[in-house]
Amino acid sequence: MTDKWLPTLITATPQEGFELAITLSRRGVKYTQPNTEILKKLRPDYADSADALTAASHVIAINFQTVAAANNYWHG
Amino acid sequence: MTDKWLPTLITATPQEGFELAITLSRRGVKYTQPNTEILKKLRPDYADSADALTAASHVIAINFQTVAAANNYWHG
Amino acid sequence: MTDKWLPTLITATPQEGFELAITLSRRGVKYTQPNTEILKKLRPDYADSADALTAASHVIAINFQTVAAANNYWHG
Amino acid sequence: MTDKWLPTLITATPQEGFELAITLSRRGVKYTQPNTEILKKLRPDYADSADALTAASHVIAINFQTVAAANNYWHG
Amino acid sequence: MTDKWLPTLITATPQEGFELAITLSRRGVKYTQPNTEILKKLRPDYADSADALTAASHVIAINFQTVAAANNYWHG
Amino acid sequence: MTDKWLPTLITATPQEGFELAITLSRRGVKYTQPNTEILKKLRPDYADSADALTAASHVIAINFQTVAAANNYWHG
Repeated sequence: MTDKWLPTLITATPQEGFELAITLSRRGVKYTQPNTEILKKLRPDYADSADALTAASHVIAINFQTVAAANNYWHG
Repeated sequence: MTDKWLPTLITATPQEGFELAITLSRRGVKYTQPNTEILKKLRPDYADSADALTAASHVIAINFQTVAAANNYWHG
Repeated sequence: MTDKWLPTLITATPQEGFELAITLSRRGVKYTQPNTEILKKLRPDYADSADALTAASHVIAINFQTVAAANNYWHG
Repeated sequence: MTDKWLPTLITATPQEGFELAITLSRRGVKYTQPNTEILKKLRPDYADSADALTAASHVIAINFQTVAAANNYWHG
Repeated sequence: MTDKWLPTLITATPQEGFELAITLSRRGVKYTQPNTEILKKLRPDYADSADALTAASHVIAINFQTVAAANNYWHG
Repeated sequence: MTDKWLPTLITATPQEGFELAITLSRRGVKYTQPNTEILKKLRPDYADSADALTAASHVIAINFQTVAAANNYWHG
C-alpha cells in the first residue's frame, strides 16, 4: 500500500491504543482483500454472526497486546 | 467511540484485572458491531453454545495476558 | 461477580499453576454464561467432542502462560 | 488431580521441553474430560483429521512457548 | 526453499513491519503448499469469505507481534 | 520419540528460524499421529484447503515467535 497509515505504535491513552489495535485488525483484512466493494458485501457475514464477532474481538486482543507493549502499558 | 471507557489498564487486584479483560473482550465485539439491538439478538447464539463460550473465554484469556503484564502480575 | 475467587496468581508449584489456569478458563466461560443449569446442559457438547476438548486445552494453555510468567516460572 | 505430574518446567534439552509441551496439552484435555474410556473413543476423531491435528499442534506450540521461556530457551 | 526471502526482521517503520508480517503469513502458507497454481485456485475461497479474512488478519497479528518485538517497537 | 530432532533453537538466520518453526509445527502433528501412512493420506485435506493452509501458517507463526525470541531476534 502506498498510503501511510501506521507512522507509530505510540498512543496517548490505553483507549486510543485499543482503537489502534482495531485499525491494525482491519488493515490485516484489507491487505488480504483490497477490494472495498467485496469487503462491504461481506460485512453482514461477520457483523451479524456471534462467532465472527468473537473472532474479530480475538484479533483485536492480539493486536492490543502489541500496542500495549509498545506503549509500556502506558506507565509513562 | 466518544465515551471514555479505558482510562488505565491498572487494577487493584487480579480479579478486577480479569474483569477488565472481559470488558476489553466485549468492547472488541462492540466496536465491530455497535448496534446494541443486533448484539442482544445474537446473545443466545453464543451464550447457549459450548464452542462459543470456549471462544469467548479464549479472547478473555488473551486480554488477561495484557492486563496482567500491565499490572506486573500484581507483584506490587 | 461478588465472590472473591482470584486473590493472587501466585502458586506453590507449576502443577497448582496449571490448575489455576483451568480455573481461569472456566471463569471466562462462567462470566459469559452465569446460568449454572445451562452450563451443565452444555457439558456433553464439549466433554465428548475431540475438537471442543482441544479448544478447552488451548484456552488453558494461554492462561497457563500468564500464570507461569506471574510465578517467574517457579524459579524462586 | 491427586497425582503429581508437573514438578517443574525445567528440562535438559529443547526436545524434552517440546515433549513436556505435549504433556501439558494432553493434561489440558484430561482435566476437562477425565474419563479415559471416552478419551480413547474420541481418539480417531482427531488423529485421523487434518484440522484436528493442526489444532493439536497449535496447542503444543503455545505450551512450548511457556516451557521455552521457563528454560530461558536453553541458553544455560 | 533456496531463495533468500528473510534476511532480517528489522524494518524502518511500523508499517513496513506490518507488511513484513504479511509476508511471513503468506510464506507460512507457501511452505505448506508450494504449488502456485493450487494457491491461485484457492484464493477465492478466502478472499471472498469474512471468516477466512479474519483468520488471515489473525495470523498477520501474531507475526506482527514478532516483528514489532524484534524492532523494539520502533523506539529507536 | 527416540530420534534427536531438536538439539537447539538457535539458527544462523531469521529464515532458518522460520524453517525451524515449520519443523516444530510438523512435529506437533507427528507426535499426535505418528503413523506416516495416515499423515500422507490426510495431506490433500489441508494442502488444498484455504482454511487449513491459514491454520498451518497460524501454528508456524506461533512457533516462529518462540524461535525468534530464543535467537534474540537475530540481533547478535
